[in-house]
Amino acid sequence: MSSDKTIILITGCAGWLASLLIHTLLADPDTPNCHLILADVVQPTSPVGAPAIAFKADLTDTAEIEKLFTTEFGVPDIVYALHGIMSRGAEDNFDLGLKVNIDSVRMLLDAARHYGEAAGKLIKFIFTSSLAVYGGPLPEVVTPNTIATPESAYGMAKLASELAINEYSRRGLVDGRVLRLPTIVVRPGPPAAATSAFLSGIIREPLKGTSAVCPIGTSPTDPKLDALHTWLASPHTTVSNLVHASHIPASRFLRHTRVVCLPGFTASVRELLDALAEVAGPEALELVRFEDDAVSRKIVGSWPARFDDAYARELGFVGDEGGMVPIVRRFKEDVEAGRA
Amino acid sequence: MSSDKTIILITGCAGWLASLLIHTLLADPDTPNCHLILADVVQPTSPVGAPAIAFKADLTDTAEIEKLFTTEFGVPDIVYALHGIMSRGAEDNFDLGLKVNIDSVRMLLDAARHYGEAAGKLIKFIFTSSLAVYGGPLPEVVTPNTIATPESAYGMAKLASELAINEYSRRGLVDGRVLRLPTIVVRPGPPAAATSAFLSGIIREPLKGTSAVCPIGTSPTDPKLDALHTWLASPHTTVSNLVHASHIPASRFLRHTRVVCLPGFTASVRELLDALAEVAGPEALELVRFEDDAVSRKIVGSWPARFDDAYARELGFVGDEGGMVPIVRRFKEDVEAGRA
Repeated sequence: MSSDKTIILITGCAGWLASLLIHTLLADPDTPNCHLILADVVQPTSPVGAPAIAFKADLTDTAEIEKLFTTEFGVPDIVYALHGIMSRGAEDNFDLGLKVNIDSVRMLLDAARHYGEAAGKLIKFIFTSSLAVYGGPLPEVVTPNTIATPESAYGMAKLASELAINEYSRRGLVDGRVLRLPTIVVRPGPPAAATSAFLSGIIREPLKGTSAVCPIGTSPTDPKLDALHTWLASPHTTVSNLVHASHIPASRFLRHTRVVCLPGFTASVRELLDALAEVAGPEALELVRFEDDAVSRKIVGSWPARFDDAYARELGFVGDEGGMVPIVRRFKEDVEAGRA
Repeated sequence: MSSDKTIILITGCAGWLASLLIHTLLADPDTPNCHLILADVVQPTSPVGAPAIAFKADLTDTAEIEKLFTTEFGVPDIVYALHGIMSRGAEDNFDLGLKVNIDSVRMLLDAARHYGEAAGKLIKFIFTSSLAVYGGPLPEVVTPNTIATPESAYGMAKLASELAINEYSRRGLVDGRVLRLPTIVVRPGPPAAATSAFLSGIIREPLKGTSAVCPIGTSPTDPKLDALHTWLASPHTTVSNLVHASHIPASRFLRHTRVVCLPGFTASVRELLDALAEVAGPEALELVRFEDDAVSRKIVGSWPARFDDAYARELGFVGDEGGMVPIVRRFKEDVEAGRA
């Protein structure tokens, strides 16, 4: 860091993951005197009691990006590029997806490069990518050497941005760190439209006393629930890893790529439901309605569910220990405390 | 094709490979009544005796791209996107490389998509990519499932454009075909600055009676010449494959990718020199000066030299049979006929 303060720009800061990241960064002993520059397409709110400036910004506009690098806090030391059009949105609105998920990332990279150079800083550029980069036939276990051939606009854009970040890093223009996130459970907030949303919904809604739809299987005893596996991480573990990404010395990454598939664990839909029953009692399961949907089943079944995450763990990234039960327990506490 | 004529747009048409492609297309019985729209950053010349319009065009400018789709010939049936800043240029002029090798390809894709849609055509979009997409540790034999992690601005840009073409094809916006070319020997013309240029130079220059530098080894008997292998194809085979790419039904490609590594053959630098001696006599070898250069040796040694090209051959793409000797013989005939 260039001074005793840590200046951090977070784009897409209005999302729930970014909110959790902000609170974790502010409490992180290794991120001293954190000054936050926050930007989103909707006016973000600043966290209470921390130095922060919040911008409503269109990140497809160079001038608006430049504002984020010329605040009174100075040039950021770290950029968290978390903004993006999510998978369904990018698929439905192709051109907007390309603008936001590729072009604006490159504009942000260029700003980090030029303002960083002028300030004598090699800015850490931390980017959240997705398992959507994978497509086509996949091996049973995905490794760091598994080819990514996306079959969605979202996955393609994430991979294109990864390539740019790798190349900018190789040239010493930014210090990139690309994290491919597992599916996050349990996501807080209202039910989302994403195909993966049910994986959180079948836990979250019953814990809140409302019903949820499970698009896999026709009953709680359907063997389809055992057959379908997913690669998961909790929100807290994911955010810990996002913070850790800023602390890894650049020299520890492989020479030819800054991409890391974060650690996770494999669970069947059955295991998610079992964890719900264990934590909230079998009556919670009665709030799950089974409406088997072949399309959803096919999409979820196409996602890679097992990864060799040894490289990520060598870099100090962590996974959730103990599978789903502790995650569901924590979410239940959050619900009871009014935090979720 | 939408009518009895075949309208073909070729960008980067002033290059030697494009020139050879033009003549091959005009002679191709499966490409009837070929009408050529030719564009390059320098004013191109039209081939004699064929319907052709030639444009000096800046392909990073949307307006200039649109001109190519609104000629009196009509909307192209096929686009050959051959323009680009070559590897050394893209490395030395990073921003221009991104503009030409990524942004202008996407602009060209968008033009093909929109003008194609308006004309009721799914335009075939044929793109030449490169082995420069590969980097990092590679297996002994590269397969269609080998991950590409570029370590150059050129390779990164080619891969980013590949991703866009795959996605535009998946969405039915264009009908893309991406060809990763082997190193082409023997390239005609004056010596080039590319690191790979010597592979042609050590054949071409002696055949023309002038001297060439071989940056591998210190003498004709240096074992380094045997140790260094490359993946090669002749100009004529490469151009045959470029034409063939326009004839393959879309349904024959793998569902998740339009990328094809073209067939080739593996030869050591020694085998190139042996072919020269066999065709032009051992005295031709005396025109090769050995100036061992560790940097060149390292770069060439990092290129993949062996491919499993079964998929490409299934699609009907061809390789050179008989290795280097027939290629050198043909080039010698071209030199003697004043064609090279």
